[in-house]
Amino acid sequence: MAIIVQKFGGSSVANAERIFRVAKRVGETYDAGNQVVVVVSAMGDTTDDLIALASQITSNPSAREMDMLLSTGEQQSISLLAMALMEMGYSVASLTGWQAGYHTDGVYSRSRIQYIEPSRVLREIGHGNIVVVAGFQGISQDGDITTLGRGGSDTSAVAMAIALKADVCEIFTDVDGVYTADPRIVKSAWKMPEISYDEMLEMAAMGAVVLQPRSVELAKQYNLTLHVRSSFNYNEGTIVKEVATMNKDMEKEMVVCGVAHDTNVVKASIFGVPDIPGAASEIFNKLARSGINVDMIVQSGTRDSKQDMSFTAVRSDRKKIEAVLSDVVENMPAESYALDDTVAKVSVVGAGMISRPGVAAKVFQVLSKNNINILLISTSEIKISCIVDELETKKAVRALHTAFELDADTLVNVEA
Amino acid sequence: MAIIVQKFGGSSVANAERIFRVAKRVGETYDAGNQVVVVVSAMGDTTDDLIALASQITSNPSAREMDMLLSTGEQQSISLLAMALMEMGYSVASLTGWQAGYHTDGVYSRSRIQYIEPSRVLREIGHGNIVVVAGFQGISQDGDITTLGRGGSDTSAVAMAIALKADVCEIFTDVDGVYTADPRIVKSAWKMPEISYDEMLEMAAMGAVVLQPRSVELAKQYNLTLHVRSSFNYNEGTIVKEVATMNKDMEKEMVVCGVAHDTNVVKASIFGVPDIPGAASEIFNKLARSGINVDMIVQSGTRDSKQDMSFTAVRSDRKKIEAVLSDVVENMPAESYALDDTVAKVSVVGAGMISRPGVAAKVFQVLSKNNINILLISTSEIKISCIVDELETKKAVRALHTAFELDADTLVNVEA
Repeated sequence: MAIIVQKFGGSSVANAERIFRVAKRVGETYDAGNQVVVVVSAMGDTTDDLIALASQITSNPSAREMDMLLSTGEQQSISLLAMALMEMGYSVASLTGWQAGYHTDGVYSRSRIQYIEPSRVLREIGHGNIVVVAGFQGISQDGDITTLGRGGSDTSAVAMAIALKADVCEIFTDVDGVYTADPRIVKSAWKMPEISYDEMLEMAAMGAVVLQPRSVELAKQYNLTLHVRSSFNYNEGTIVKEVATMNKDMEKEMVVCGVAHDTNVVKASIFGVPDIPGAASEIFNKLARSGINVDMIVQSGTRDSKQDMSFTAVRSDRKKIEAVLSDVVENMPAESYALDDTVAKVSVVGAGMISRPGVAAKVFQVLSKNNINILLISTSEIKISCIVDELETKKAVRALHTAFELDADTLVNVEA
Repeated sequence: MAIIVQKFGGSSVANAERIFRVAKRVGETYDAGNQVVVVVSAMGDTTDDLIALASQITSNPSAREMDMLLSTGEQQSISLLAMALMEMGYSVASLTGWQAGYHTDGVYSRSRIQYIEPSRVLREIGHGNIVVVAGFQGISQDGDITTLGRGGSDTSAVAMAIALKADVCEIFTDVDGVYTADPRIVKSAWKMPEISYDEMLEMAAMGAVVLQPRSVELAKQYNLTLHVRSSFNYNEGTIVKEVATMNKDMEKEMVVCGVAHDTNVVKASIFGVPDIPGAASEIFNKLARSGINVDMIVQSGTRDSKQDMSFTAVRSDRKKIEAVLSDVVENMPAESYALDDTVAKVSVVGAGMISRPGVAAKVFQVLSKNNINILLISTSEIKISCIVDELETKKAVRALHTAFELDADTLVNVEA
């Protein structure tokens, strides 16, 4: 018998009807002769509602108490999903994070899982039960409830699958799988049957958010196969796995596997920073301490012992960034700063580009030919990202998708 | 330093404003130099809302999953109360039932506490923290969350006070204390400064619901002093304690300490039950298995090898009772059954009546003189209860309050 871990997000369990739909899916997997562990998030808006409740009490809640509060969300959804499965005749046990054996490093609101002690889960499986586990949460060494932060439930599912040596971890989403580009923008985009961990990581980080990067990193580390698929249909989704086990033809064929874009971007620049050791470190430490996740960083050359720096982050951090940069300008001091949230990030991703020089050059050329100005550039071994005017996003994505021969009609033989 | 355990019910923490009022009260107790452990229930309607949520999934939820679901209610209120206390500058730690060390017998939905392992609570107290504990819940030997059922939070508070050897357990309610009768009905009713455990038990069981009987039983067993007081003012409430330590004069003076009434009563009768061994046992076993808490039971004499039985229960059980009795009539068989939910229970309570014969006779005489028909009678060593027509409730309570010389003006010397 195979062990399958299935993960359903908050929108999949947002109401009774959807909970039953999830239960049906889980039950079918069980009926097919599998041992099933289901990891679920809090129902729909529950987390937001709880945050609103806390904000009536304090504008600065203790992280420990927020974790205590928010972890009730998943506890509610596991009990309701368990009830739905029982109503359909299955034997089930729901387990909170601490019951399921998630041991964390104890950092409130953004814990990392240290290890899973899965004896309770294994016992329930052994009794023939479907096990419904609360995602997003675990227990610290001190016995406190801690949450895993953004992307926590995906990570919970992957970690449990690893601990149970599951055959596959199925991540159910509202899309069919991972596409070569957003199908709403690029009509000829197509669903990739397979993608490597690294490519998935870059696609995820680039705004094609079907899987949280943390969970992909973890799966990669333990070589766990992920299956990203739709909770609305039975189509095969996208398998995320090691490059070595992927279809060889495909790897050869595809220099670039996809074009991703992200409009949730703010670009910040700080000008006239003293060109002394530690200046950059001080600025980015301040940003980190304010909880700002900096994405791309570009430092231009020095002029008159001064330098300019730019970086990007998510738009909701705009105010926090402003506070840090105005502090830097005043106290470092630097000359000035500027923020621009009318930009977008467009990225091409592909493991194949490691061995193929000239991909970056081609990206710049395609954008230039389409009169799209590049504001920032950032590259890794398997992706190239450009910040462009937000209004140019669609044009850029379509042009790159075509230029790298990703359009469905040019790829029939690979897709088949 | 004294350890004080304070218990606040769901209506006391129903919204942010009330949570701050509770926090103020708790903070004052801490500021006065006490070590404070606060036990709270779920906010206002949370439990009902969660039950409604479950009922969208199933009409017959698993008890284990209901406990999983409902226990989130208190977990939310402890985190919010902790946040409020922190907002006011106090050091606080909230603890769920399992974190606070409540170990139960594992019976879902109506667990009994087996023992409390208070090391975590003591550690937090040792750090100078106010400890906010989730009432109503604990953990079974198997590591499952179980709830304590009706009256659970009072019992949680009392049990914690016993485990911590607290000096007093303060139960905050929306009334000032325990009155000789419901002050809304009897203008001359007065608040008792002291009451014995046994009297409190009878008063509580008789509908003067300021304290759950289970919690009083537990306090009695460990001789823990309870203080029933208002969360709206600073008046001294009613102290519940051992008879031996009570004001001697008062004990002598008061044959009857109070008159209680309860209109949440349905009277059921079953007629023509075969007069064979085991018939009563079978009927009451069936009722118990249906979860019906039978209160008074009266069996009249035998006629033609048949007997009639009557009993009372809470009105919300009417449908379940009907189902059981119609089953009994059909299958035992018995002749017929009848239900009446236009009745009320009126009780006189007092430890003094043990040594004073004639109290029952006086009760019947008073009611008869007021043309109040007695439908059922039930007595214990320290209380006499009569079922009467619901419309006669107020008249009965007032007449008994006066007849037993409880009216405030006749008692000035005792009250002073």
